[in-house]
Amino acid sequence: MSGFFASVAAFEAALESLRGIDAAARDAAAARQDVLTKPPGSLGRLEEIALFLAGWQGRERPRIERARVAIFAGNHGVAARGVSAFPSEVTAQMVANFEAGGAAINALAHAAGLELVVVPIDLDRPTKDFVEVPAMSAEECLAALNLGAAVVEPGLDMLVLGEMGIANSTAAAALAAASFGGGAREWVGPGTGVHGSAFEAKVAAVDAALTRHAKAASGAFDILRRLGGREIAAIAGAVLAARQAGVPVLLDGFICCSGVAPLAATNPDIVGHCLAGHCSAEPGHGRLLDRLGLDPILSLGMRLGEGSGAAVAAGVVRAAIASHDQMASFAEAGVSEA
Amino acid sequence: MSGFFASVAAFEAALESLRGIDAAARDAAAARQDVLTKPPGSLGRLEEIALFLAGWQGRERPRIERARVAIFAGNHGVAARGVSAFPSEVTAQMVANFEAGGAAINALAHAAGLELVVVPIDLDRPTKDFVEVPAMSAEECLAALNLGAAVVEPGLDMLVLGEMGIANSTAAAALAAASFGGGAREWVGPGTGVHGSAFEAKVAAVDAALTRHAKAASGAFDILRRLGGREIAAIAGAVLAARQAGVPVLLDGFICCSGVAPLAATNPDIVGHCLAGHCSAEPGHGRLLDRLGLDPILSLGMRLGEGSGAAVAAGVVRAAIASHDQMASFAEAGVSEA
Repeated sequence: MSGFFASVAAFEAALESLRGIDAAARDAAAARQDVLTKPPGSLGRLEEIALFLAGWQGRERPRIERARVAIFAGNHGVAARGVSAFPSEVTAQMVANFEAGGAAINALAHAAGLELVVVPIDLDRPTKDFVEVPAMSAEECLAALNLGAAVVEPGLDMLVLGEMGIANSTAAAALAAASFGGGAREWVGPGTGVHGSAFEAKVAAVDAALTRHAKAASGAFDILRRLGGREIAAIAGAVLAARQAGVPVLLDGFICCSGVAPLAATNPDIVGHCLAGHCSAEPGHGRLLDRLGLDPILSLGMRLGEGSGAAVAAGVVRAAIASHDQMASFAEAGVSEA
Repeated sequence: MSGFFASVAAFEAALESLRGIDAAARDAAAARQDVLTKPPGSLGRLEEIALFLAGWQGRERPRIERARVAIFAGNHGVAARGVSAFPSEVTAQMVANFEAGGAAINALAHAAGLELVVVPIDLDRPTKDFVEVPAMSAEECLAALNLGAAVVEPGLDMLVLGEMGIANSTAAAALAAASFGGGAREWVGPGTGVHGSAFEAKVAAVDAALTRHAKAASGAFDILRRLGGREIAAIAGAVLAARQAGVPVLLDGFICCSGVAPLAATNPDIVGHCLAGHCSAEPGHGRLLDRLGLDPILSLGMRLGEGSGAAVAAGVVRAAIASHDQMASFAEAGVSEA
């Protein structure tokens, strides 16, 4: 197979050998923060974000001239078990909505100055029902990883990741459990809004899938292909390819982060170039962020997916860069220091 | 005295008789949210913000075409007690920095599309030391209230409030305590970064001021004039005048909110048209937001003042409006409902 990851072994090798930051650029940014006209540390998280971006972009003054939100979409065999409040055809309908400009992410990406790339992946070929068999073959999973990697174009200053896929919070719960342990009830939540029997069907599907794949699923790739989905594997591929390219990533909600979970279970440093845009209302997301060691920028009770929470957080990232770049120093402004 | 509040009695009457929202506009906005292409409620706080703005602006689709951040600056007699990490001349130096475009708020206001108005108030005439006497005369306090009210121009879609004033977190602690009870240690924090003996001087100043004014300070106006500062009274005036004009307000940190505290102690409904932009790192701010009944949009460990946290939150408000305004309905997009 061609593409960014030529083989499963290439994917695994990339995950084992992760690029580090440009420490000199980060140090220069920290020195700059020290002399800007404010009490030291008083911009809080904004200062940390500026230093994070400096380290990954390799610039004392990071920039966001070209940032992209990539939305991957996929369909799921497990949807047939009645685990979602919406029918599977909504995935394609929402992709059409993204393409027509009518979805939340269109408005939010525009507000944050992000270009939008929509990548529907074989919507007419749902993954297999992972309660019975692996969701994807190795070839299918590798193809999805490479579709994710392909959105990491040279010159991107930041990559924002999101997803759409009816039933994919069921897959996300299975991925989180397989990566970090815990039973289905620890990770299953209402998703788009399931309750009662649909919620119980979701728990049962995740429980059964964990049992079925417990022995076989080991290692990031195998967990992804057995319990994931095409759009979720694409997110994993995008995160890893972004790391290799030194492009900082802004993650969205539970499902987006579930694509990183199997990678982090193998190599926790994979989140080093990632910011968590928000903590969603889906109960498993806060737990998953804890396991990933990520502190969310926002916590606004959002639970839409599509990259929507991350796109709102991109505005905070822009604010961090603007203050870091545009403020005067004490000496420049003639302001007395403490 | 001329101005928005012609007398103390006029100020008190305005505070007793607060304008309500346009319920029809808010209901229309809620009905619109129900049919947009997303699971109901899935944009969380963004939906609440859109409805809040609809109610106060009187529009089903609120807008932010013209929003202003107003920064009030004042100096404080209590600064002579060594309660701040910075000397009092920094207030005027930072006003010059605002005017030259080199401060954090310049960068953050520009990033959020806010016009910036800087209102230094008698910087060469600090308030009196409130440990000894009232900080302001009634005339001085009324003048400051009216300078605040004057920034509420017709046609503003939102008003963002901030402040600058060496030693004003000491005044803010005194105002919070006088408004909501509790001793100095409950409300005093490090401000710009005081520790050790300066921190103890701050606690002692607030304790002594509360004792000195305990019996005399009753009612919003009297608390403001005895324990406040010119920039803080201006914020109080701006908040009340914005309410009368139906202009929604975005509040900043501890000191900004301390200007609302005496008003809220008299009439808790005064915060009805206010959003709390963020919860700052100053320990008293979270407590004060609780007493005011406000849920902060952001919590980023910021503690700069200048309206900086509120300006970052303005980006979230813009995102809320963008999604509310630009999204397609299920019917428009041909998407199946749950």
